[in-house]
Amino acid sequence: LSWTSSEIREQPLVLERILRENPAQAKECARQIKDRGVRYVLIAARGTSDHAAVYAKYLLGSKLRLPVALAAPSLYTFYGTPPLTGPDALVVGLSQSGASEDIIAVVRHARSQGALTLAITNEPTSELANAASLVLPCLAGPERGVAATKTYTAELACVALLCASVAQESGLFAELAALPEAMDQALQTEQAAAQVAAQYCRALLAVCLGRGYNLATAYEIALKIKELAYIHAQGYSTADFMHGPLACVEPGLPVIAVAMSGALRDDVAASLSRVGQRGGQLIIISDDEAILQSAHASLPVPKVPEWLSPITAVVPGQWLAVHLALAKGLDPDRPRALTKVTVTR
Amino acid sequence: LSWTSSEIREQPLVLERILRENPAQAKECARQIKDRGVRYVLIAARGTSDHAAVYAKYLLGSKLRLPVALAAPSLYTFYGTPPLTGPDALVVGLSQSGASEDIIAVVRHARSQGALTLAITNEPTSELANAASLVLPCLAGPERGVAATKTYTAELACVALLCASVAQESGLFAELAALPEAMDQALQTEQAAAQVAAQYCRALLAVCLGRGYNLATAYEIALKIKELAYIHAQGYSTADFMHGPLACVEPGLPVIAVAMSGALRDDVAASLSRVGQRGGQLIIISDDEAILQSAHASLPVPKVPEWLSPITAVVPGQWLAVHLALAKGLDPDRPRALTKVTVTR
Repeated sequence: LSWTSSEIREQPLVLERILRENPAQAKECARQIKDRGVRYVLIAARGTSDHAAVYAKYLLGSKLRLPVALAAPSLYTFYGTPPLTGPDALVVGLSQSGASEDIIAVVRHARSQGALTLAITNEPTSELANAASLVLPCLAGPERGVAATKTYTAELACVALLCASVAQESGLFAELAALPEAMDQALQTEQAAAQVAAQYCRALLAVCLGRGYNLATAYEIALKIKELAYIHAQGYSTADFMHGPLACVEPGLPVIAVAMSGALRDDVAASLSRVGQRGGQLIIISDDEAILQSAHASLPVPKVPEWLSPITAVVPGQWLAVHLALAKGLDPDRPRALTKVTVTR
Repeated sequence: LSWTSSEIREQPLVLERILRENPAQAKECARQIKDRGVRYVLIAARGTSDHAAVYAKYLLGSKLRLPVALAAPSLYTFYGTPPLTGPDALVVGLSQSGASEDIIAVVRHARSQGALTLAITNEPTSELANAASLVLPCLAGPERGVAATKTYTAELACVALLCASVAQESGLFAELAALPEAMDQALQTEQAAAQVAAQYCRALLAVCLGRGYNLATAYEIALKIKELAYIHAQGYSTADFMHGPLACVEPGLPVIAVAMSGALRDDVAASLSRVGQRGGQLIIISDDEAILQSAHASLPVPKVPEWLSPITAVVPGQWLAVHLALAKGLDPDRPRALTKVTVTR
């Protein structure tokens, strides 16, 4: 068994740990966010963590009505012209290792400008954690697989807990509490994902589609497939896909789509129908029977509230990436050309 | 001659027109931005215009030190929870047609919330233009090719003019004034691009890399190649590429890189060297002799100040997309599955 597979399986436990151990810190973050009157958020992240940032953009936008910007780190590290953020900005550094120089630079500059700063990281003694005034630890334990799996869903869960803590809605906490069990069910997609992998492991490229909360999921599944199976999988918003990339669909193109029930269900289903008409092979991750029936291959996941669905919906994608790698005879723990900690300036 | 080719050639004239006819409107926008004390910017855009938004994120961040967020339109159109933007926010809708419902929704909500709103569009009588309190017209004339070319560089030029107007630095205006002539020179890359196209027209996929100001250029070239030549070209920041996608590089992969002189020159060159070591075939767009010498195929562009370089550096990419299409026997004016105006909610 690979480290990566073990780490995927640890995810329900990691979620439980976050929900058990992080509420006090999350509450303190929420208190400071409210005391400051935070009016917008800037998040710095790279790679997998950048997808957690995309989730945060939708979640904080929707539940807290905060505009969220994703930082352009080179403005801090190379151009020497960091955008100015004042006391009403929350600036978040999201990083598994807490070691990437550019992410640290964004948080450090923002703190010196008077912004409220928060590190969400699996390394609470990292330079990133030291640079920020607040820390939410991911509590995922050591991650040995080079590709991030449990630290990704841990980052999402930290963002979700923070959001519930600021919103102070008891309904949100109740929904969060049910998450570890749903995650257990989501793990059971492994066999179905292995079958899909056997069918598509000779693909050179693939497209991953999602929208809204699950745009992050499409991006993350695409990255896992690239990292582990070396298949050029590209993530898109279904809306953006209609503005040009649709022209690229040829009969047989594997299209991995995250199409959950919720506000975007019909919109995403309509886009997938157009992709299917052009010959795309739809591999659908969904909690909706009717949508799954339109798929060439279906990966059913448990029903959870839409705002939490990115945490469970990514799991069949993680399994798919692992089994595509195994089907190709690759080691999922050690993708070529990559190291566990990537430091960029 | 295709419409698309003619429209690419019109770009120096369009730039001249913008610099001649738009300064008064840009000055009025600048006045209101300063009067309001705008402290952050939210931009809504799709497809090609979204790449102009990425340029704006770097330019307004760097020259005006404003944090820039890219909007999540589904929060407005599907979730019914638009993020709250007050009088110190500038909210920009960027759209060639001014017709996409989701972009209009973002601007309309923001205006009703009291934000300063601006439409940058080629259709100054469009619904988007009506929804915003300020308009900067792209003045590109009708665009008949389905893929946006002259309207893209027109959007960039409008953003650049706006930025110079807010900064009120005479040096920036002088640099802008020299742009149409540089654009004329950039057009001369057609033959070199046609040669590269002949060599790579059988590729199924490609990667486009850039960083900083020219991240937008990498994204836009990738989209043109997808739209016109149906090659799955994917744009990345060179920094993000190191955080995972690097694993996908196989010997022979075409890698189109925008590597201009300026603050990021050495950083981008170092990343390209790693890509080259892994067997990537580097097709480099640059104004720097030394960098061009490291390329398998080089597309030299004229030297312009780095902040304006995305306007000229995209041109060889536009030519490359057109000539890849022609080499494959495709009609560049009418990409399959697409229409000129894409309306998404």
